[in-house]
Amino acid sequence: MLYIVGLGSGERYLTKEAEEILNNVDLIVCYKGYKKYIEKFNKPTYTSGMTKEIDRVEKALSEAKNKDVALVSTGDPNVYGLASLAYELNYIKNYNVKIKVIPGITACLLAASILGSPLHDFVVISFSDLLTPLDKILKRFKLALEGDYVICIYNPLSKRRKEPFLKAVEIMREFNKNYIIGIVKNAGRENEEKRITDFKDLYKNLNEYLEYIDMNTIIIIGNSETYVIDNKMITPRGYLNKYKVIPCYKK
Amino acid sequence: MLYIVGLGSGERYLTKEAEEILNNVDLIVCYKGYKKYIEKFNKPTYTSGMTKEIDRVEKALSEAKNKDVALVSTGDPNVYGLASLAYELNYIKNYNVKIKVIPGITACLLAASILGSPLHDFVVISFSDLLTPLDKILKRFKLALEGDYVICIYNPLSKRRKEPFLKAVEIMREFNKNYIIGIVKNAGRENEEKRITDFKDLYKNLNEYLEYIDMNTIIIIGNSETYVIDNKMITPRGYLNKYKVIPCYKK
Repeated sequence: MLYIVGLGSGERYLTKEAEEILNNVDLIVCYKGYKKYIEKFNKPTYTSGMTKEIDRVEKALSEAKNKDVALVSTGDPNVYGLASLAYELNYIKNYNVKIKVIPGITACLLAASILGSPLHDFVVISFSDLLTPLDKILKRFKLALEGDYVICIYNPLSKRRKEPFLKAVEIMREFNKNYIIGIVKNAGRENEEKRITDFKDLYKNLNEYLEYIDMNTIIIIGNSETYVIDNKMITPRGYLNKYKVIPCYKK
Repeated sequence: MLYIVGLGSGERYLTKEAEEILNNVDLIVCYKGYKKYIEKFNKPTYTSGMTKEIDRVEKALSEAKNKDVALVSTGDPNVYGLASLAYELNYIKNYNVKIKVIPGITACLLAASILGSPLHDFVVISFSDLLTPLDKILKRFKLALEGDYVICIYNPLSKRRKEPFLKAVEIMREFNKNYIIGIVKNAGRENEEKRITDFKDLYKNLNEYLEYIDMNTIIIIGNSETYVIDNKMITPRGYLNKYKVIPCYKK
């Protein structure tokens, strides 16, 4: 049996289901950078590096023929994790392994809670163009702005991959709205930090933000109703209008 | 102190952080239908019914002035929960209470894990037009289809509110694609069920689906690459193409 387990973001956000499974499997397979998160389960482990995703999934599938194996992701395995690759390789290569996905708190939910309450109808999009063509990413991003969705951006930029972010900034500029923007680095980890700013500031200080934002950052762009109370990012659901509790503090 | 706590979907998906907080607060405030989920914490509770959201939030805020209070939502408090209303009322009515949001597994993540691995870049949208105008919902839905996003629909329809769903079906028909559609009812509960179908079947048997789908249902519409393996809904991330492991079983 193969469990594809989401660790959530930070140790405090592991679910009971995930914990129980990790305490009971025979082998844990994960990216080598995440080994520190699974050591406490005291299990045999197999790790490999970046771009070795197929290797890890095949190892997990072949061992899962006669063991209980957990293939772990941080966050949720369905959100830019390895769940679909495992189902695909299981089928193509006839492993015939039973697979179960165990959800986890994905980074945008934790980032949202750190920023306050920024979500309403929302989009989750990755700016990594390793597997998705850049044109498709930018088209999706533009349509999300057109739809006035709250937008959660994963993998916004890295030292070597700045182009998707820079093009997205240009698209935002065309919309000519001073979006509220929340930025959370290392959500749920010791060195967690957050900033709440707006598009004007981001654009004016773009070079500084290009240094600040990294692959462990989640960016949440508010919709047209998002505003800031006491350094918290709030997107109203509409109760106050519906029930005539007028938000007199809003401009 | 006011904690706005996500219970996750189903008991097994509570996080350690949420459990610890619920074990330590002085009062738990929730929708009366969720009382059964919090009884095990054996705490004083305050409950009220549907449309009494402002009442519950004000009760929680006023008690939180000198107690530790948990205002609980199922799923995640940021995803169609009461977090933004709490921040707003705290500010407008000068409660001056410290608020912390504790994320939970929102229903679409659990539904996705039950369906297999359907997510890639995705949209979360509610079809309830109680607080969001129907035009805005439908515009967002259409743009999500245009962007080839995976789409997770909350509150798809109720006995009395079928119009948003029926209009969305008509919009999908205009796109003329046989979308793979996953339907999960009562995710994480005893009576959990799932169906995986496609747009042609949904359209042909619309009346049956109008009976089947309810407010405890999550619908996930695949993108143009989503397909089905062994009754699991899979949206590839692109590894197999990138690394030339050709998915020979795909039409």
